[in-house]
Amino acid sequence: MRSVIVITGASSGFGALTARALADAGHTVYASMRKTRGRNAPHVEQVRRYAAERYVDLRSIELDVSSQPSCDAAIQEIISTNGRLDVVVHNAGHMVFGPAEAFTPEQLAGLYDVNVLSTQRVNRAALPQLRKQQRGLLVWVSSSSAAGGTPPYLGPYFAAKAAMDALAVVYARELTRWGVETSIIVPGAFTGGTNHFAHAGAPDDTTRAAEYDAGPYAGLADQVREGFASMVPADSDVSAVADAIVRVVDAPFGKRPFRVHIDPSQDGAEVVNAVSDRVRAELLRRIGLGDLLIPRAPGSGRHAEAAPSS
Amino acid sequence: MRSVIVITGASSGFGALTARALADAGHTVYASMRKTRGRNAPHVEQVRRYAAERYVDLRSIELDVSSQPSCDAAIQEIISTNGRLDVVVHNAGHMVFGPAEAFTPEQLAGLYDVNVLSTQRVNRAALPQLRKQQRGLLVWVSSSSAAGGTPPYLGPYFAAKAAMDALAVVYARELTRWGVETSIIVPGAFTGGTNHFAHAGAPDDTTRAAEYDAGPYAGLADQVREGFASMVPADSDVSAVADAIVRVVDAPFGKRPFRVHIDPSQDGAEVVNAVSDRVRAELLRRIGLGDLLIPRAPGSGRHAEAAPSS
Repeated sequence: MRSVIVITGASSGFGALTARALADAGHTVYASMRKTRGRNAPHVEQVRRYAAERYVDLRSIELDVSSQPSCDAAIQEIISTNGRLDVVVHNAGHMVFGPAEAFTPEQLAGLYDVNVLSTQRVNRAALPQLRKQQRGLLVWVSSSSAAGGTPPYLGPYFAAKAAMDALAVVYARELTRWGVETSIIVPGAFTGGTNHFAHAGAPDDTTRAAEYDAGPYAGLADQVREGFASMVPADSDVSAVADAIVRVVDAPFGKRPFRVHIDPSQDGAEVVNAVSDRVRAELLRRIGLGDLLIPRAPGSGRHAEAAPSS
Repeated sequence: MRSVIVITGASSGFGALTARALADAGHTVYASMRKTRGRNAPHVEQVRRYAAERYVDLRSIELDVSSQPSCDAAIQEIISTNGRLDVVVHNAGHMVFGPAEAFTPEQLAGLYDVNVLSTQRVNRAALPQLRKQQRGLLVWVSSSSAAGGTPPYLGPYFAAKAAMDALAVVYARELTRWGVETSIIVPGAFTGGTNHFAHAGAPDDTTRAAEYDAGPYAGLADQVREGFASMVPADSDVSAVADAIVRVVDAPFGKRPFRVHIDPSQDGAEVVNAVSDRVRAELLRRIGLGDLLIPRAPGSGRHAEAAPSS
């Protein structure tokens, strides 16, 4: 079945790869990004050309995840064009690298905005439609760092991704009775193939960062980069993430995996999440809310009473 | 040994109990809070009276965790009065309750500020001194929700606490070589004995919240509250958290536990953190950074070169 899909942060990296892979699989895919008429105009042109050459339904759309009006406008345009929206892929994100102490609170706030508040804005734009349809899928591109091994110097980013993962877990349970399903994609470190590491932000407080570099943490930045490189197998392929998302979207409703790990470095997230998702399910059953674990089929039970007003 | 300690959010709840317990144990304790001349003036008076009646060194101090200048001024006053600062207890926090979709992005940002950016501001104020001393202790009051079972309707709070826990884990590794130790306190749900639940914030988007209440999630808020109440044993005592922090502070340097769980509801966090802390230690050793797991003794190794400039 052809789905109408929007993916955030689709100008490059996992986002661009996933948008193409989903279009190749026969879906109508909106590769959303900001600055479609500015900095990202070349990416818009790449999208157009890819769609034309491959005869697939891949489109770009202006969507700035830092702006609620921009999120609202993009989602409304997709809904009015297609009459529906089936899948939202929360992919937009940004990384920073350096000693935690050297980042200003404002930098941490900005990182939370792009990695977490972004998903909240898109959810608030899209969920009324998904709830009205009594059918839909949220795909969250989380990070193995939220559960697995974490090297130093990525603290503000790991904090934001842990928050995103926690939010995804709770949203999942608050959406099953509306017929909206959730899959959390958990990529490990991919040091090549995306701009995630190359474009990582640096601390604003360079004085504080220099104290670490001149003190007992001299050389650590290089050790962390080399450590990452040593953990990621040379043949690891970022397209594995896009392929996993295609499999999730193409799986039947109600049968999609709650989590999919794609972690060539094997940092332990898969082990930890197996335990944490288990104790979380156990807690829901213990307080009589076990039904929240499974998305409800449309028209079943109390669903019929539940058309949202917006 | 008498330590000089500052604790945030000490007007009530865990914070007030912990400040008193640490003072009773013989330490110089600054119970920090905002609005010491306004709303919290009665708490300031309680602190004064407690100190006078018990002959302990408990003091209140103005510290608004949402303001860097306020954090800087409080920490500077403590350092200039005492010549040092030994322990920082990150306790300030706030909870919200309701469907995640009904919270505005601005509410999520505010919650991140009070639960996470608060710790960043206090760290940036205090860590130069702790690093200069080559000795110190950070105590983070995290939450079992960051790893264990999580009911619905607390998403934005759980997201913020998961971020705080992740930040604490990374900071720990970036501070050991400076001689600064970390202990993460993991309280489970305590439904009585603090104002945490009673004072929880509500969603600003009441229209969206009403859709959940009128739809398939009708009655869920009460079910979650009752579920929590059923999980927390009637004899669970919030002072267990304060007692645990006293034991951590009084333990010898280098021997303090990385985590302490105080979770009468047994939501599974202790099981999950045992695994996650293990795979995290494993990753550091794998990339040759195993030394970051243990705080360095003052004056050892490269420490002597490492006096920070500020």
